[in-house]
Amino acid sequence: MLKLYYSPGACALASHIALEEAGAQFELQLVNLREGQQKSPEFLAINPAGSTPALVTPEGVLTENAVILGYIAQTHPDAKLADLDSRFNFHKMLSFCGFLGASLHPAIGRALFARPPLEGEAKDAAVEAGMVKYRIVEDSLFKGPWAMGDHYTVADGYLYVFCRWVKAAGLLDPERFPKLNAHIARMQARPAVQRALATEGIPAV
Amino acid sequence: MLKLYYSPGACALASHIALEEAGAQFELQLVNLREGQQKSPEFLAINPAGSTPALVTPEGVLTENAVILGYIAQTHPDAKLADLDSRFNFHKMLSFCGFLGASLHPAIGRALFARPPLEGEAKDAAVEAGMVKYRIVEDSLFKGPWAMGDHYTVADGYLYVFCRWVKAAGLLDPERFPKLNAHIARMQARPAVQRALATEGIPAV
Repeated sequence: MLKLYYSPGACALASHIALEEAGAQFELQLVNLREGQQKSPEFLAINPAGSTPALVTPEGVLTENAVILGYIAQTHPDAKLADLDSRFNFHKMLSFCGFLGASLHPAIGRALFARPPLEGEAKDAAVEAGMVKYRIVEDSLFKGPWAMGDHYTVADGYLYVFCRWVKAAGLLDPERFPKLNAHIARMQARPAVQRALATEGIPAV
Repeated sequence: MLKLYYSPGACALASHIALEEAGAQFELQLVNLREGQQKSPEFLAINPAGSTPALVTPEGVLTENAVILGYIAQTHPDAKLADLDSRFNFHKMLSFCGFLGASLHPAIGRALFARPPLEGEAKDAAVEAGMVKYRIVEDSLFKGPWAMGDHYTVADGYLYVFCRWVKAAGLLDPERFPKLNAHIARMQARPAVQRALATEGIPAV
C-alpha cells in the first residue's frame, strides 16, 4: 500500500491525480502547510526537507513530484501514464516536469505564497517572473492537446496544478493562454481529477 | 554523439561531470549566460526555456540536470553511476537530485546570482533561505561518504556544483558543514571532475 502525504491544493495534487489515474491502491495523509505541520518532528522523519509530496512505498520514501510521477507511471504500466517504451520520450516528459518543478514552481510560488506576502512593486515583479514561465509553456513546451502531445501523461496532472493556481488568481488570461485554459477544462473533465479534487475538498477552477 | 550546452561553472557542470564519469562520447557548446546567449534565437531553438544544461541526443533534446543525469546513468550502465538494479534506489537518488534542482538551486541562486544583485537585508535573508537547504543536506539527506551512501552516483556531481558555489562565496563553514566540505575534497580528487573543471576553465575550490 502506498501512502501520500499531501496538503489540499498544494503541488502534491499532481501526485494525487497520478495515483487516481493509475488506479493505485493508496491512502492519503494530510499535512497542513498553513499550520506548519511540514516542520513537525513526525513529518520531518518522513521527509527531512519538510515539503510535500512524500510517497511512502514498501521500500521507503520518495519525494519531489517529478520523481514520484515517473515512479507511479513505471509501477503502473497498464495505466499508460507515460511512454514506457521509449527511454527518450520518457525522459523528455521528465524534462517538462523538471521545468515545472525547478523553474515555474519556485517563480510562481514566490509570487503567490511568499511569507510574509509580497506587496506593491515586489509583488508585481514576482508575478511577472512567474508568468514568464507560463508563457514558455503556452508558446513552446506544450504540444497539445495534452502536454506531451496526443497522449495523456502524468505531466498533465502536474501542469494542471500550476495552471489551477494562476487561474484562481485571475492571472491566466484566456486570450493570452488559450492552450492552458483549454487544458484546465480537459483535465477537469477527467473522473480521476474530479475524484482527487473532491477528496482534497478543493474546487474546480 | 551527444552535445552538451553549458556555461562555465553554472549548474550544467553536473551534467558535464556525469558525461566525463560515464566515459561518454560528447562535445561541448558554450552558452555565455552573462552575455545573455541563453536568450538568443539559436539557443531558444534548442531549449525554449532558455536555460542550461541542454543535452542533444540522437533522438532530440533533453533538459534539466536531474533528468539528464538519470539519462546518462541509464545509457552508460557500465560506468555504474547509479543503482540501475533497484527502481526504488534509482528514484531515491532522483529525489535527492530533485531537491537540489527544485529547492536548493532556486534558493541559493536567488541569493548569489539575482539580477540586479540583492543587497543589505534582502541579501542576508536570501542567503539564509539558501543555506537552510544546505543544512538539510548536511544534517539529513547526505549519507556519506557519497551523497547516496557507499557508492558514487551522478547525484554527487550535482551536489558538488552547488557546494562549489557556496564554498567560493565563503558560506560553507567547515565546522558547520564538515560532510559537505569533505565531499568537495573527495570530488576534486576524481580525474573526471578535474577534467571537467579544466575544460570549463574554472578552479577547484
